[in-house]
Amino acid sequence: MRVTQRVRKMLDWYESDNPGTKANLARMLMEGKLGGTGKMVILPVDQGFEHGPARSFAPNPAAYDPHYHFQLAIEAGLNAFAAPLGMVEAGASSFAGAIPTILKLNSSNSLAASKDQAVTGSVGDALRLGCSAVGFTIYPGSEYAFEQMEEIRELAEEAKSAGLAVVMWSYPRGPNLDRAGETAVDICAYACHMAALLGAHIIKVKPPTAHLSLEAAKKVYEAQNIDVSTLAKRVEHVVQCAFQGRRIVVFSGGEAKDLDGLYEEVRGLRDGGANGSIIGRNTFQRPKEEALAMLGKIIEIYQGKA
Amino acid sequence: MRVTQRVRKMLDWYESDNPGTKANLARMLMEGKLGGTGKMVILPVDQGFEHGPARSFAPNPAAYDPHYHFQLAIEAGLNAFAAPLGMVEAGASSFAGAIPTILKLNSSNSLAASKDQAVTGSVGDALRLGCSAVGFTIYPGSEYAFEQMEEIRELAEEAKSAGLAVVMWSYPRGPNLDRAGETAVDICAYACHMAALLGAHIIKVKPPTAHLSLEAAKKVYEAQNIDVSTLAKRVEHVVQCAFQGRRIVVFSGGEAKDLDGLYEEVRGLRDGGANGSIIGRNTFQRPKEEALAMLGKIIEIYQGKA
Amino acid sequence: MRVTQRVRKMLDWYESDNPGTKANLARMLMEGKLGGTGKMVILPVDQGFEHGPARSFAPNPAAYDPHYHFQLAIEAGLNAFAAPLGMVEAGASSFAGAIPTILKLNSSNSLAASKDQAVTGSVGDALRLGCSAVGFTIYPGSEYAFEQMEEIRELAEEAKSAGLAVVMWSYPRGPNLDRAGETAVDICAYACHMAALLGAHIIKVKPPTAHLSLEAAKKVYEAQNIDVSTLAKRVEHVVQCAFQGRRIVVFSGGEAKDLDGLYEEVRGLRDGGANGSIIGRNTFQRPKEEALAMLGKIIEIYQGKA
Amino acid sequence: MRVTQRVRKMLDWYESDNPGTKANLARMLMEGKLGGTGKMVILPVDQGFEHGPARSFAPNPAAYDPHYHFQLAIEAGLNAFAAPLGMVEAGASSFAGAIPTILKLNSSNSLAASKDQAVTGSVGDALRLGCSAVGFTIYPGSEYAFEQMEEIRELAEEAKSAGLAVVMWSYPRGPNLDRAGETAVDICAYACHMAALLGAHIIKVKPPTAHLSLEAAKKVYEAQNIDVSTLAKRVEHVVQCAFQGRRIVVFSGGEAKDLDGLYEEVRGLRDGGANGSIIGRNTFQRPKEEALAMLGKIIEIYQGKA
Amino acid sequence: MRVTQRVRKMLDWYESDNPGTKANLARMLMEGKLGGTGKMVILPVDQGFEHGPARSFAPNPAAYDPHYHFQLAIEAGLNAFAAPLGMVEAGASSFAGAIPTILKLNSSNSLAASKDQAVTGSVGDALRLGCSAVGFTIYPGSEYAFEQMEEIRELAEEAKSAGLAVVMWSYPRGPNLDRAGETAVDICAYACHMAALLGAHIIKVKPPTAHLSLEAAKKVYEAQNIDVSTLAKRVEHVVQCAFQGRRIVVFSGGEAKDLDGLYEEVRGLRDGGANGSIIGRNTFQRPKEEALAMLGKIIEIYQGKA
Repeated sequence: MRVTQRVRKMLDWYESDNPGTKANLARMLMEGKLGGTGKMVILPVDQGFEHGPARSFAPNPAAYDPHYHFQLAIEAGLNAFAAPLGMVEAGASSFAGAIPTILKLNSSNSLAASKDQAVTGSVGDALRLGCSAVGFTIYPGSEYAFEQMEEIRELAEEAKSAGLAVVMWSYPRGPNLDRAGETAVDICAYACHMAALLGAHIIKVKPPTAHLSLEAAKKVYEAQNIDVSTLAKRVEHVVQCAFQGRRIVVFSGGEAKDLDGLYEEVRGLRDGGANGSIIGRNTFQRPKEEALAMLGKIIEIYQGKA
Repeated sequence: MRVTQRVRKMLDWYESDNPGTKANLARMLMEGKLGGTGKMVILPVDQGFEHGPARSFAPNPAAYDPHYHFQLAIEAGLNAFAAPLGMVEAGASSFAGAIPTILKLNSSNSLAASKDQAVTGSVGDALRLGCSAVGFTIYPGSEYAFEQMEEIRELAEEAKSAGLAVVMWSYPRGPNLDRAGETAVDICAYACHMAALLGAHIIKVKPPTAHLSLEAAKKVYEAQNIDVSTLAKRVEHVVQCAFQGRRIVVFSGGEAKDLDGLYEEVRGLRDGGANGSIIGRNTFQRPKEEALAMLGKIIEIYQGKA
Repeated sequence: MRVTQRVRKMLDWYESDNPGTKANLARMLMEGKLGGTGKMVILPVDQGFEHGPARSFAPNPAAYDPHYHFQLAIEAGLNAFAAPLGMVEAGASSFAGAIPTILKLNSSNSLAASKDQAVTGSVGDALRLGCSAVGFTIYPGSEYAFEQMEEIRELAEEAKSAGLAVVMWSYPRGPNLDRAGETAVDICAYACHMAALLGAHIIKVKPPTAHLSLEAAKKVYEAQNIDVSTLAKRVEHVVQCAFQGRRIVVFSGGEAKDLDGLYEEVRGLRDGGANGSIIGRNTFQRPKEEALAMLGKIIEIYQGKA
Repeated sequence: MRVTQRVRKMLDWYESDNPGTKANLARMLMEGKLGGTGKMVILPVDQGFEHGPARSFAPNPAAYDPHYHFQLAIEAGLNAFAAPLGMVEAGASSFAGAIPTILKLNSSNSLAASKDQAVTGSVGDALRLGCSAVGFTIYPGSEYAFEQMEEIRELAEEAKSAGLAVVMWSYPRGPNLDRAGETAVDICAYACHMAALLGAHIIKVKPPTAHLSLEAAKKVYEAQNIDVSTLAKRVEHVVQCAFQGRRIVVFSGGEAKDLDGLYEEVRGLRDGGANGSIIGRNTFQRPKEEALAMLGKIIEIYQGKA
Repeated sequence: MRVTQRVRKMLDWYESDNPGTKANLARMLMEGKLGGTGKMVILPVDQGFEHGPARSFAPNPAAYDPHYHFQLAIEAGLNAFAAPLGMVEAGASSFAGAIPTILKLNSSNSLAASKDQAVTGSVGDALRLGCSAVGFTIYPGSEYAFEQMEEIRELAEEAKSAGLAVVMWSYPRGPNLDRAGETAVDICAYACHMAALLGAHIIKVKPPTAHLSLEAAKKVYEAQNIDVSTLAKRVEHVVQCAFQGRRIVVFSGGEAKDLDGLYEEVRGLRDGGANGSIIGRNTFQRPKEEALAMLGKIIEIYQGKA
């Protein structure tokens, strides 16, 4: 694997990590059609846990099979595939070496009685399954946030020492945040910064809206004339909050929308300097050919060709 | 032990497991009258814990003796016998090698002040007692679900690394589910999928009713025309939610009914592609000869002979 | 030590235990005047913890001294002496080898703000003090029952692997039980069965009354015509719930009564097949000579001589 | 160090302890002006934690310096000096070998939101600082009592195996005790007995009043004619509850009083058979010369000379 | 590195620490323009965690980059730089050996649902990142104070045994303290004393006001005529509460104020015998040149030149 100059430079951001972790970051950054560009598209499939199998896979029943997702990610030329324990176990051997995998270490579900997540995988699992990274969701602002931070602290330390990369899903929620606040730009930026401070290598946040949630923050955004009028500007700000861009930041698909809306959003992410997208439901709920076409287009956008 | 092609193919589903775990899965799948067919009938005896000894064994007092159950499972030609620590300890040496055992690692009881379970056995216990698998109950939807998932995550990792198989009883309950919801087909399918994602090798769920519980799921089932009109169709759907059938799914006995009703139900399970049944009270609360006759009939159904 | 046929047969019940644990069971079963008969009388002295020192020992001040209890148990020809950490430490060396000891690993007290127990000893303590067994109280039905079961699970696994025997005090209480329910025969039988399932070698329960507490159990007792009209019949039922008598069951002294009442009760226990008695306060609150006479009489009853 | 017959006899009480622990008990019992008599005076300085520095040390500002307390204890010829981690660290090297030290392992404070204590030191700390013993406070009767007992159980096992002695401060409080109850003689005796059962080598309680707190205990004290009319009689009873005097019992200073009142109290303690006193504030809040005079007088009382 | 007499004397205060810890204290005390004087100015950058990135860095956007802070601390000739995990990781290699670093091991944030902190770093992290010390915040008086004390106890023991220094931020708050109480002189002094007793090498508190908060303390301050009329006098008292000055005490910037107010405050700290200042926001929210000028002036004040 020849590592491009661009990726080599990005690896330098992770100056405190061991060669094992750098190699795993390189594997993800060099994989697929965006390999070497510093951009990434990742396929995450944990919606079966979050929303149930039928709501996730019935629109495209081939997707009930874990192998389908491995195959899709490979055929589409993506950078990595992320899933919970059982789903990775179901295909890790068949597709060993074919695409970098991210083991999602915690999971929530729609039946849950509390707004927490359960730890459902371990660093040892990630290692025996040949994963390149572990993934973990935190809910900054929730009653469980401190506990989650302590869980990922411990898991991340173990992962890093074992040469794995650490991906954090940072999704604010909780008593101090209303619905609009969860995707407000000040909150997304804060969530991104906290993940960076917690030692994440790759940070996943939602595309921010122009809303400002915390009163104290609002004053600063206005006083400092921080431009949050366009998605590109907001993304630029969020990336800035990841140590002036020293950490990889990728964005989820955001609110449901049509394909044109989706492509437009991705252009905004790209123009703002995002490192890429994590797109789940929008991908596997379509027939495979449509999904491949869509992912191809998104990749072209990140390549600056569309 | 010669492993049949059918079982060999099923072992391939467990592509991330070590040879020890595969061997233990093979032991259970090759045992008894259904050995080699890919179908299983398992005898579980934890009702003494759940409901008390008299309610469980008084109708057939020979069943107070743990040896009775080992003997019954062997004579009936079943695939495995599952029980809590003390009961396995009481017969593990007398019946060593005679039938695969599953050590149930957690237990509830009718006196309990909360709807949780206590961890009452360990992987170390399973190993010293020569068990082929460990069993664990989760209550998706309950206040204790995340905690239970974290317990089984840790126990399952340990069990797998020691070459044991992992059986999960996935029984939804909790504040978001009414009585009908606990066996609704969307909920059973979800419970089955979660157990698969948690890394179970064998999943036990209840036979699903045609009821749909979650509003959000109901819409999808209707929009996608998922056929839940017959038990066979519902079972097919539940099995699909186990990674398109890549995980073994067995069903408990369901609501009390007469023998004809029970056989009819088993035919539905078989026709839907279930891998088998776990039948406790219906078995050991009858005189031994009646129980053997009943189990023989069920086995014939799974063999396609009845 | 020559082990009798009777005791050798009882050791066979514990077919999954290692030779170390069997040897310790044998030591207790072969000790004292009942040695070799399969019957046991054990002296427990944890009342100072439970009720305070003056309420326990003021009626017979010699009993403030731990050595007194070791001496009493030895002179009376009992099978074992059970006590919390400090009391065992205070005499373990002076009486090393003179009588088997059971280290009580948890304790409650009358000042406590909750109906739980504290773990106050360890398996390591039992080993360094030369004990033959560890003892542990569970309160099935209480808010702390699951936690206590998990504590004893862990301690019992450790004790068994170190060759110690495990004695469980199973005392139901909690929100689902009224005062009468705590000693109801269905509840005692259930408590005994749970201790057996948790892996106890020796189970201590209270003498059951003819009361039936759980509505669901009541129906079964009536439908199955389970005879609970005499203490002997009830004890027979409780012993049956200990794996058809495959586990040693001993009974505490029950409600306060005069000596004749006590002897009558012990005859009931004996006739029902109990393996013996654990008698604390009734013993050490009398002058030593009276206590020795009383214990002598109880032993004669178990010998079938009185 | 030549150990006196009296001390050698006391060491025999601790028949289950290893030579390391016995040696450390001997070090404390042989130190200072009371060395060899079986009596002890100990200086405890944790009031800065409990009440704050100014309330503790402002009356005698030299006492802000940890070295002052080491020096004071040495000059006064006391048996040991007890303090929390930071204070022992501040002088352990300068005064290494000059006086036995007791590392207090838990601490409370006046700002605390709950009536618990924090564990603030470890057995490892005690070892690296050359301490002879660890100290720990329990609050029998409080909501945290079971947890505290489990903490000290674990710490005490570790300390004993490392050859350290274990000192327990047993201070009853909690929802079942009113202010008068906390020092009632039945409660002090109970607290002392619990510490003994928990395995303490040295027990610290408060001087008991003639009050009887628990209704059930009161009946026994009256029925058995337990004499609690004088401090000496009450102390005698408390010592009796420490395994008939097989454990060392020392008393704190009790309510604030003038010097004559203090000496009178110490005479009562001595006459009741107490093993000594632990005196903090009364000591270091006076100018050094006055403190030395006072301690000299107390020592004389224990020597039977005053 | 030649250690000055002044610093050598300060190292003697830490008489129980190993040479590794003493060396790290020396590294911090000998670094920068105040090196060797016994005074310190430290740059802490955890405001992004506490208040969010925009509120922290937008006034001076260069500060979004972790390298900026390393550079600033070096150019200003400070003694050390303190930050949470991710920020230290982002520059630890580029600036290895260039300035001592303090890894902040716990963190709070403005979205939090409770007034606690999450542990977000470990001693292992500090060692692999080449830090000289670990930092930890406690909130004496809060509902989480005992838990925090137990966390830092364990982390501090580990840090000390690994040759690291321990810095404690001691910030009182909680139900027994109103806003004014949090910086009252009796409370600051108490907070400082508790950190010393917990084993801190360096203690950070806020500049105390003349307010007295605890009623019981107030009486003593008045009775003993403790002079709290000037900042210098109050600082003197706080330092006295750090074992008569045997521990290093540094002060945070206090309430927002203009530069002259800030310099005046620093003069008060210096005149009271403070060992230095920890100044965050006041530093990095200004353009770099202004920040360097300000820090230069503060250093001159501590040098007695301004």
